[in-house]
Amino acid sequence: MKSKIGNQTIEFEKRPVIAGMCSVGGTKEGEGPLKDDIDIVLSDNMYGEKSWEKAESKMLKTAMETAVKRAGLEVSDIDIMFSGDLLNQLMSSAFMARDMQVPFIGLYGACSTMTQSMLMAASMVNAGYAANVLAGASSHFCTAERQFRMPLEHGNQRPPSAQWTATAAGAVCISEKSLAVAGGNVITERNIYITEGTIGKIIDTGMKDANQMGAAMAPAAVDTLLNHFEDTGRSPDYYDIILTGDLGFIGKEIALDLLADAGYDKSMLSNIYDDCGTMIFTKDQDVHAGGSGCGCSACVYTAWLFKKMKRGEIKRALILSTGALLSTISPFQGESIPGIAHAIALESE
Amino acid sequence: MKSKIGNQTIEFEKRPVIAGMCSVGGTKEGEGPLKDDIDIVLSDNMYGEKSWEKAESKMLKTAMETAVKRAGLEVSDIDIMFSGDLLNQLMSSAFMARDMQVPFIGLYGACSTMTQSMLMAASMVNAGYAANVLAGASSHFCTAERQFRMPLEHGNQRPPSAQWTATAAGAVCISEKSLAVAGGNVITERNIYITEGTIGKIIDTGMKDANQMGAAMAPAAVDTLLNHFEDTGRSPDYYDIILTGDLGFIGKEIALDLLADAGYDKSMLSNIYDDCGTMIFTKDQDVHAGGSGCGCSACVYTAWLFKKMKRGEIKRALILSTGALLSTISPFQGESIPGIAHAIALESE
Repeated sequence: MKSKIGNQTIEFEKRPVIAGMCSVGGTKEGEGPLKDDIDIVLSDNMYGEKSWEKAESKMLKTAMETAVKRAGLEVSDIDIMFSGDLLNQLMSSAFMARDMQVPFIGLYGACSTMTQSMLMAASMVNAGYAANVLAGASSHFCTAERQFRMPLEHGNQRPPSAQWTATAAGAVCISEKSLAVAGGNVITERNIYITEGTIGKIIDTGMKDANQMGAAMAPAAVDTLLNHFEDTGRSPDYYDIILTGDLGFIGKEIALDLLADAGYDKSMLSNIYDDCGTMIFTKDQDVHAGGSGCGCSACVYTAWLFKKMKRGEIKRALILSTGALLSTISPFQGESIPGIAHAIALESE
Repeated sequence: MKSKIGNQTIEFEKRPVIAGMCSVGGTKEGEGPLKDDIDIVLSDNMYGEKSWEKAESKMLKTAMETAVKRAGLEVSDIDIMFSGDLLNQLMSSAFMARDMQVPFIGLYGACSTMTQSMLMAASMVNAGYAANVLAGASSHFCTAERQFRMPLEHGNQRPPSAQWTATAAGAVCISEKSLAVAGGNVITERNIYITEGTIGKIIDTGMKDANQMGAAMAPAAVDTLLNHFEDTGRSPDYYDIILTGDLGFIGKEIALDLLADAGYDKSMLSNIYDDCGTMIFTKDQDVHAGGSGCGCSACVYTAWLFKKMKRGEIKRALILSTGALLSTISPFQGESIPGIAHAIALESE
């Protein structure tokens, strides 16, 4: 078996499928452009829990359990689970995994987590190590604000370049084959196959402003994109859509400029390229530079993209969640922001 | 290909090898029982850096780079890198990976990280996704104390059940085949093969005392052990040594009791079972219940176990790094401590 192509890309010859999926969104996300697409919209961002962290963990658990059900499976059918979030020590994922009782690998990739989880999950299924693997990610505006920025009670002012951490979770069940049965919300029209994954390197251009995350991550997204094209011999127009997440309004423009600098036609790119951080909220929702957080791209993929692929409206997609791997301490030690992005190529029947 | 055996175990039929390895230890670790085994002992735990976090990141980088060299490779030969540490947002791993420029997957498993990294790395190599993959983990007493407990300047008193976070790092290069050339510190006598990996579930018995980590993690270690034995059809005496890490002096006794309760002979187990947290320090080094931290088991494996296997003194080993997946916030929200352990079976020629 020869599965490695080029320098950073894995080919999944067995083409694992997205057998089940679920998106969960908070109140603000439920008022945004995806309000009709998100499977479960919370009426209260505490989700019946006593802390924001526990609410986030419950959102992730709901997404995971629902993805299992929609795959026509039981939790006991799941072999391995990959998950991550923004919280210190992966609090949301750890407590979700405690309740689920599935062999668990915790990942940290900041907002790149969803494609990181999916890449690992597809790797396990394609290799025959597992028949059904869960991959998920979550974030919550209130847990992220108090951990990374200011106590919410402080009413901190946000600069125009800041992004808004989505209160959202997404999960997929990646399987050898799709068992999903019709009925309810299950969309069974077409299989979505995971065909390749490109693991990203860290790119750090020296940006130090933690309120300019899009600018810090855009070069990493473009580096992974260019490596993906080189490894696969494809050009951007091979795909019907290329979705980064979450560069936001500013980072998206930077990514477009960098791709144009690399020789790709900007008007062609404008037709096929978008960013999850610009899709989950509208500008008039007071989110400044757009959405962010592990849950943002996780939710956009599972609420919007994968459903469009199931319905046959999009055939080939390339998704790249993007992460800013700074820590709460590193900026105080003079460090710049390391960016990373992992890509996954998908194809529907 | 049928690689999954039982419920939680992956069989690595291609038997990836540990082609290179390196251990780094701090000053206290260099005065302990492994003083003659650790490859690189720091003379100062700042390691020439301006912060403890940067020192920890440099230790990890040194371990990674040296493991590559000892495998007879260049960094550009490495396809993927898995790494984790205890720091929020994986600060040590992220900045190490920024410098190394290798496709990077960050993992969080608290002190279980070393077997978690190795398991993922072996999975990639065995599947043919990569020829050479790095796996590593690190911890630093000073970074962990200030993040999880008290500022060092506070001179906090530690209860007898508390463990001492090792200032240590370990890395291995896992490859399709061993290219290592003789000479210097390279021990080339025998190949060490990675034969199986067992991914752990979270076990939480309701312990809430963060100064009783060994007790919180021992049930998870035993659960993974029992699942490994069930999945493989083996009993403990199949192995010359079973090494958990890091239950410490208290957790080790609890694990022995739990295994005895499960029907295994305690005197047989006493001959083959040990714990990395009891091996990296002596009791008279004022470490109370023993060592802990991602770097503890990473260092004991790479400094001691794998060298013994290379020399033919140990043939079959089972290693299980153990993690306590509490967060810095979860205890304040009334939560108990989720434990996890991942096992890897090794065989030398």
